[in-house]
Amino acid sequence: MAGILYLLPVPIAAVDPADVLPPPVLATARRLGYFLAEDARSARAFLKAAGHPRPIASLQVVEIGHAPDPDLIDGWLAPLRADPALDAAVVSEAGCPGIADPGAELVARAHDLGIPVRPLVGPSSILLALMAAGLNGQRFRFLGYLPQAGEELVARLRGVERDARLGETQVFIETGYRNQRLFETLLRQCDPDTRLAVAVDLTGAAEFARQWRIADWRQLPVSLRPDLSRRPAVFLLGTAPPARQRAPRDTATGGRRARH
Amino acid sequence: MAGILYLLPVPIAAVDPADVLPPPVLATARRLGYFLAEDARSARAFLKAAGHPRPIASLQVVEIGHAPDPDLIDGWLAPLRADPALDAAVVSEAGCPGIADPGAELVARAHDLGIPVRPLVGPSSILLALMAAGLNGQRFRFLGYLPQAGEELVARLRGVERDARLGETQVFIETGYRNQRLFETLLRQCDPDTRLAVAVDLTGAAEFARQWRIADWRQLPVSLRPDLSRRPAVFLLGTAPPARQRAPRDTATGGRRARH
Repeated sequence: MAGILYLLPVPIAAVDPADVLPPPVLATARRLGYFLAEDARSARAFLKAAGHPRPIASLQVVEIGHAPDPDLIDGWLAPLRADPALDAAVVSEAGCPGIADPGAELVARAHDLGIPVRPLVGPSSILLALMAAGLNGQRFRFLGYLPQAGEELVARLRGVERDARLGETQVFIETGYRNQRLFETLLRQCDPDTRLAVAVDLTGAAEFARQWRIADWRQLPVSLRPDLSRRPAVFLLGTAPPARQRAPRDTATGGRRARH
Repeated sequence: MAGILYLLPVPIAAVDPADVLPPPVLATARRLGYFLAEDARSARAFLKAAGHPRPIASLQVVEIGHAPDPDLIDGWLAPLRADPALDAAVVSEAGCPGIADPGAELVARAHDLGIPVRPLVGPSSILLALMAAGLNGQRFRFLGYLPQAGEELVARLRGVERDARLGETQVFIETGYRNQRLFETLLRQCDPDTRLAVAVDLTGAAEFARQWRIADWRQLPVSLRPDLSRRPAVFLLGTAPPARQRAPRDTATGGRRARH
């Protein structure tokens, strides 16, 4: 028996946590006293904004950092093994822990140690961008960051665009101050018929999510283009969704499909 | 000017919608009167469970089906173009519209027509399974359904497992009554060191999410194996998360990373 390791999403924009987390998720955040946080300061700010009833300084918030040290993980998880009544939550700086963010290292080890793992519902810019893109959501690939260097980026984009045009949506991200450059490289390098979706500040006050063909993006007056600089953005390349790949009919259950 | 096309997630297990949707998302569901639904009956059941204040029979619920007819999409979106005050929501049978579910066809057309698109936060079995898997979440690929036929499945699995072992998490789903067979095929065909995560009934009363090496799954007594038959499941193959691919530091913004 061991405590539970929750995977607790946090907001991806400057909004009240109560606006992007279901009430039971918020209640879990308020109940716990032990947090494994990518960044301790932002985790405490989240807990305060989430209305945690205890003094924030009294909560145990351990900073696991952007690249958790494998040698420290067992120590971080030890309290859960010692006390089945003690639960913890992994929180990243924004969005879902373990997805384009640290956390998976701890989850993997929790499984090895028999610690139950519970993912909680919350915002993910990757998932929201996929929904908003109107590209193929039956097959997609998250690539993380593309190469920074110009030539290397252009070479990589060739392969990425080829896969996109074969019907697999390609999803990637960039750090704030390189967004604009990546966007311009995409407009310059991609085929006019390739579809590009850009999602910025999702769930935030300045949310922007559009998908057009590269040719249409190029024609867009500069004044109407999204301002991407230093704003969180997700980029997606793809084609129009194909006539849908149907789920194999589940005759044994009267034609009901699986619930995903 | 046109109304807004919301992408409204619905529960993925037999739970109260208020338990898995943030309050503003629930409020949007209760405010709208026009729904584009994969399945009209399940959409009406959702709206009733969500506490929609109007008689459910008075709401306009148009069934777009599992594979929406491209010739009908403009007609479905026409009311939004005719009346900027009329908003609509796409809802699938479970989870997020457009992700392993229909909806993207409508979203693509909405972008073409200048209809604003807004994705809303809610449960996705794919995203939750990724969080719970403790596999690499910096690079992952959603494959949809694998081939059904035995030989074809085994051949495909070879490529999938190879990609998984190269560090890209491979995510796939199956219909309820084939889950058990797929699970057994994975145990039989994959390398003992490959890591397999299985997530079942996420957010539901019988939630199960575990990740072990194939060798460990094999040693698990049959009595302790999850019962997958006719239950919604997500399968993931991968390796332990690598020392994390760090985001390129964003020196221009004082080292803050993008928020995803």
